[in-house]
Amino acid sequence: MRRIAVLGSTGSIGTQTLEVVENHPDMEITALAAGSNIRLLEEQIRRFRPKVAAVWSEERAEELKARVADLDVRVEAGMDGLIAVATEASAQVVVTAVVGMIGIRPTIAAIQAGKDIALANKETLVTAGHLIIPMVRERGVRLLPVDSEHSAIFQCLNGEHGNRIHKILLTASGGPFRGKTREEMKNIQVEDALKHPNWSMGQKITIDSSTMVNKGLEVMEARWLFGVEMDQVQVVVQPQSIIHSMVEFEDGAVMAQLGTPDMKLPIQYALCWPERRPMGGERLDFWKLAEIRFEKPDFDNFPGLSLAYEAGRTGGSLPTVFNAANERAVSMFLNRKIGYLTITDIIESAMRRHTVIPNPSVEQILEAERDTYDYIESRW
Amino acid sequence: MRRIAVLGSTGSIGTQTLEVVENHPDMEITALAAGSNIRLLEEQIRRFRPKVAAVWSEERAEELKARVADLDVRVEAGMDGLIAVATEASAQVVVTAVVGMIGIRPTIAAIQAGKDIALANKETLVTAGHLIIPMVRERGVRLLPVDSEHSAIFQCLNGEHGNRIHKILLTASGGPFRGKTREEMKNIQVEDALKHPNWSMGQKITIDSSTMVNKGLEVMEARWLFGVEMDQVQVVVQPQSIIHSMVEFEDGAVMAQLGTPDMKLPIQYALCWPERRPMGGERLDFWKLAEIRFEKPDFDNFPGLSLAYEAGRTGGSLPTVFNAANERAVSMFLNRKIGYLTITDIIESAMRRHTVIPNPSVEQILEAERDTYDYIESRW
Repeated sequence: MRRIAVLGSTGSIGTQTLEVVENHPDMEITALAAGSNIRLLEEQIRRFRPKVAAVWSEERAEELKARVADLDVRVEAGMDGLIAVATEASAQVVVTAVVGMIGIRPTIAAIQAGKDIALANKETLVTAGHLIIPMVRERGVRLLPVDSEHSAIFQCLNGEHGNRIHKILLTASGGPFRGKTREEMKNIQVEDALKHPNWSMGQKITIDSSTMVNKGLEVMEARWLFGVEMDQVQVVVQPQSIIHSMVEFEDGAVMAQLGTPDMKLPIQYALCWPERRPMGGERLDFWKLAEIRFEKPDFDNFPGLSLAYEAGRTGGSLPTVFNAANERAVSMFLNRKIGYLTITDIIESAMRRHTVIPNPSVEQILEAERDTYDYIESRW
Repeated sequence: MRRIAVLGSTGSIGTQTLEVVENHPDMEITALAAGSNIRLLEEQIRRFRPKVAAVWSEERAEELKARVADLDVRVEAGMDGLIAVATEASAQVVVTAVVGMIGIRPTIAAIQAGKDIALANKETLVTAGHLIIPMVRERGVRLLPVDSEHSAIFQCLNGEHGNRIHKILLTASGGPFRGKTREEMKNIQVEDALKHPNWSMGQKITIDSSTMVNKGLEVMEARWLFGVEMDQVQVVVQPQSIIHSMVEFEDGAVMAQLGTPDMKLPIQYALCWPERRPMGGERLDFWKLAEIRFEKPDFDNFPGLSLAYEAGRTGGSLPTVFNAANERAVSMFLNRKIGYLTITDIIESAMRRHTVIPNPSVEQILEAERDTYDYIESRW
């Protein structure tokens, strides 16, 4: 039996994780954590019967407690709740599908409790990769990427022990505004930015895809996950999202993983690795596919990507500032408080005024985050 | 030290194998066999100092013996010579780069002598796969494909122990006549057919690529090498030869190997496996590549491919007839004795009149070959 805890069970990755678990009789959910959607969380509790459930808000946790009083489930709240789910004794693997930097502490707690991590929380490695990677090695746990791109790279590295990576080719759809100039993007509305051409995802990540900030975060993540330099990760725009990413080895051979855009594949792969299991859904048909196109990313009109490379190359606390500024700016854009182009203006401004702390501790990372939030609040 | 014997050292794969060996101080040539080009073979002997050298023609062997009398090398001739090279005591791996069914006996001898096989001779598996594969398993030797397509598939299977192949996607350039009708191919001359758009190869294989008979042989080979059914191997036309082949697994994930068209990569991979080593030469640049196109093969205008599927599905001695008829027909075309379209007419005619022997022995395979030759000689 594979016992699984899920942080962020009511989100896009969380619900798809539960769909995957439901298809495998040898998988079991032992703990679930959600933000505030207790209606859905209650349904999930009734269906999967975890031992522990957590809700971010204290108030909502009390409400949930009352609603599931008939069941044998412990309900917890806040960061303590997230950590209780992340360290639930019987779980072997923790799916970290919460969005944002609140994922860092529970991920660290899970690693220290000896759990394998099915990593879907980008912020963990982006902001604290220098702390997480040595911790993972020391504890001997596995870091199994859930993101389709990182899962693809992970699959390309199968059986390549000891063979050096020359370059990682991280593919990007380019988002809905690929080919547009900044001038043309001036009046973009929330509705436009939420239409992703290929993938169905959560709101924040959909906006991040449209600005290519998401790709920048993925480059930083890949750098930690696969032990390469920022400049060994090359972003290749592949508008149809058929090639999920590639690895070029020292002999010039390029390995690639392709598939239809379905997050359930990388989720299942992370949960079953190294085993592959039959999966339904649409398959690629190369006789009908016609072509796969490639482009160089447009660094000028999508400064989010250049800023990410800058943050990643500098390192220290700068990736935290990049991420926190983006998080806040996207939230302001979604609330129609700022224009679309202001998202990357805010990131750049926050990065320029920040004094980088090399090798920051978790406390310093969270401090840099708060400081960035305060700065943005005071200025926009 | 990796000690290597090469069957067919003066051909295209043979000379490229020696170039690879020259780049690796830990590789050594212990035996070389060639058809008749003793001028080049002498050069190779002087450079690589093998213990044994073999020439197919007795007369040429005598001539070579005189020319290298100053060296400590044993010169042998004919099939005995090929077998002496294939079983040279100190060799660990035998590169079988001879063209044609004369490759079968020495390959069997090498397997029985416990050598790993870097397989570049298509006919071995096409005609005798049912004998070779159990022999390889029993002797515990490795079969390392050298063909770029099979090497790609082999690379895609890295680290996938136990994961079932759903489908092999064998890519094909489509050759120089892709898109043409049979009517348009009526007057094709030898010179036209020898112009391959992407790969620089020997004459026979270049003609086979133009008729897609080569792809048919590769499907049959893949079926044995990777333990799948004929209909699990799907040919995908990919005109630029960038994707060297792909594997679709049960979960829908497709792994692919891409690269520039350079045979030295699969040769080096077979000799170094599972290690990858730095290699010079051109690299893929996805920012400049623009696109990879796919097409369904044109089974109607390229009947060589349909006939290959038929031969492979039927099995027994029919693949031998397919191969022998093609070998003879291509030779007649190269000697300007028949027209281009007659190549596949001859294959079809030889297949129709043959009475299939299930599970043929090596003797029966060679008998079916002779019988096919006789039939063609008597009719064309």
